[in-house]
Amino acid sequence: MKNLLEGIEDILLMGPGPSCVPPEVYSALSRATIGHLDPYFLNIAEELKEMLRRIMNTRNNLTIPISGTGSAGMEAAFVNLVEPGDKVLVLLNGVFGMRMQDVATRLGGTVDALEFRWGAPVEPEAVEKKLRQESYKIVAIVHAETSTGVRNPVAEIGSLLKGSDTIYLVDTVTSLGGIEVRMDDWNADVLYSGTQKCLSCPPGLAPFSLNEKAMAKLNGRKTKVPNWYLDLTMIANYWGQNRVYHHTAPVNMLYGLYQAILLILEEGPEHVFRRHRESHMALVQGLQELGLNMLVDEPYRLPMLNAVCVPEGVDELSVRRRLRSEFKIEIGGGLGALAGKIWRIGIMGHTARMENVARFLAALKEALEKK
Amino acid sequence: MKNLLEGIEDILLMGPGPSCVPPEVYSALSRATIGHLDPYFLNIAEELKEMLRRIMNTRNNLTIPISGTGSAGMEAAFVNLVEPGDKVLVLLNGVFGMRMQDVATRLGGTVDALEFRWGAPVEPEAVEKKLRQESYKIVAIVHAETSTGVRNPVAEIGSLLKGSDTIYLVDTVTSLGGIEVRMDDWNADVLYSGTQKCLSCPPGLAPFSLNEKAMAKLNGRKTKVPNWYLDLTMIANYWGQNRVYHHTAPVNMLYGLYQAILLILEEGPEHVFRRHRESHMALVQGLQELGLNMLVDEPYRLPMLNAVCVPEGVDELSVRRRLRSEFKIEIGGGLGALAGKIWRIGIMGHTARMENVARFLAALKEALEKK
Repeated sequence: MKNLLEGIEDILLMGPGPSCVPPEVYSALSRATIGHLDPYFLNIAEELKEMLRRIMNTRNNLTIPISGTGSAGMEAAFVNLVEPGDKVLVLLNGVFGMRMQDVATRLGGTVDALEFRWGAPVEPEAVEKKLRQESYKIVAIVHAETSTGVRNPVAEIGSLLKGSDTIYLVDTVTSLGGIEVRMDDWNADVLYSGTQKCLSCPPGLAPFSLNEKAMAKLNGRKTKVPNWYLDLTMIANYWGQNRVYHHTAPVNMLYGLYQAILLILEEGPEHVFRRHRESHMALVQGLQELGLNMLVDEPYRLPMLNAVCVPEGVDELSVRRRLRSEFKIEIGGGLGALAGKIWRIGIMGHTARMENVARFLAALKEALEKK
Repeated sequence: MKNLLEGIEDILLMGPGPSCVPPEVYSALSRATIGHLDPYFLNIAEELKEMLRRIMNTRNNLTIPISGTGSAGMEAAFVNLVEPGDKVLVLLNGVFGMRMQDVATRLGGTVDALEFRWGAPVEPEAVEKKLRQESYKIVAIVHAETSTGVRNPVAEIGSLLKGSDTIYLVDTVTSLGGIEVRMDDWNADVLYSGTQKCLSCPPGLAPFSLNEKAMAKLNGRKTKVPNWYLDLTMIANYWGQNRVYHHTAPVNMLYGLYQAILLILEEGPEHVFRRHRESHMALVQGLQELGLNMLVDEPYRLPMLNAVCVPEGVDELSVRRRLRSEFKIEIGGGLGALAGKIWRIGIMGHTARMENVARFLAALKEALEKK
């Protein structure tokens, strides 16, 4: 039987994730598997929790990787904290806000969506007005909206909620490791991310953190969490002092995440963020020189996810296909309402280097000229 | 900062999972990450589905890996098929049957458990009687009860349900790849497994299959699946012809699973099963020579999970600790009602080799003598 794995090529990953993976992380993934209750493994797990706290800027005890992709992190956040009938406000300006709305509705939440134009940020004034009119058990926002490339004002929304009983839920799937995440300073009560964006680890885990306020809401539930796999009251017993078996932790993926975060801490988060910013600036300049326009206004742009308007008369899919087949570069297309209208160019983690930007711009120029 | 990954030792994994991983699978895990919507990756995914069908002996179109561990497979099976009020019968003779009961109850199922002694199999006569008294939307059973080492008569229960409207749900987490699994011949409607047992891939994925009868029940639901992450109606659109983005597939773990199943198919499943049987026979003989007794009667024993009674006066935990620290061997302790009373010795996948059994028996002899 032919082994298709042997034909895998090195692709420059400049889509919305996964991003390029550093060699050290590949090596980590293939370290010898040991037991998920082995004392040596538990040391690694303990240190991983501490490293996650550092990049999230939180002191929360329950700061762990969830055994699923970033979307499992979203599911875990909502399924543990939403009880049927709970009023939930989703601040919505893209596909991942819509997903929050769907997730919370399925769980029986009474969900209001406060919508903003896709490509523009959430406006704190409108949120403040809404919060004066209604009270909510949960307010949810996406920090880095991967579908549009917009950075939402998570700190400002957090200060509106300061001192209230409302749980503040923040999605940092695309931001963590690429721009600063300050969970505690933002008054965020629950926060999750994914591994395959700016952490530069393959997809499969969701870094996750929950503070004591959110834990109190969880412990005060009238009914059991309707999801055994993601029930944090049990998961906390595995990751806590007791080490009670719940499910078998994904050992080798956890090695990969450990190594990925170690690399960020060794390089220094500030340096990593600067790498993202500088690569982004170079990309934007190069795109403008090619006559292309960014979807998002300058102050709200994410460095790691660049939404570029497809020029009139250009077949966006054929450009992407040409980049992939001739130049071995992956970029993303638009999602939802923006399908066919934008390209999404990722500059995430290990990908965020000037030489990658230069290689991409040269390739894009050729791909556009050939049209 | 010290990198703890550098201190990971090679441990002979003879617990209830994870099992030893072949070198080819480690290599596969560290192949270059490519996009989860990349055409080349989709070829790999397509072939992986076909290989899963072969080892499960099913023709079901929806035969895929779920992006979570074996427990996520259980969650996916129940959350998609149980609607509030559905009557569910769980055939229960160990911890994983209990887990099914908990999972189905959280989802609003009306759950009956038909209990059998832990260490003895489910009895088809008792099940037949129960099915004459009551009708159920779902009947659930664990093929290989990992907590006791019992093989349950899944084919016999399946023939009781033949032609009925009842959905037959089978857990093959510990059996798949070590003994024959014949999904279609058993009349199983939904079946799942895990990667870290007899497939010898690190934990992180749940092979899963659903037939048309189960899909019809899913499509006929009155309410959306209350779990966005595991909603098979959406997951099927990614793994099907349309390739609609749902969540980012765990690319490198999927490489590992692809390679692991390829190795089984290349060796030949019959040969793999014989390796398990022969290693098991040698283990049982060696244990008996040491004066130890098996928990389970001979006809119902699993080759890959051997429950051994801890002799009176022996501190089971200190024996396990000695095996781990002095001999670099992991075995498991008892779970639930059997905690402290049994050891669980895994002979799973790549671990199932005569030299491993011999090394373990020699170590156990020493560890017991030193007590």
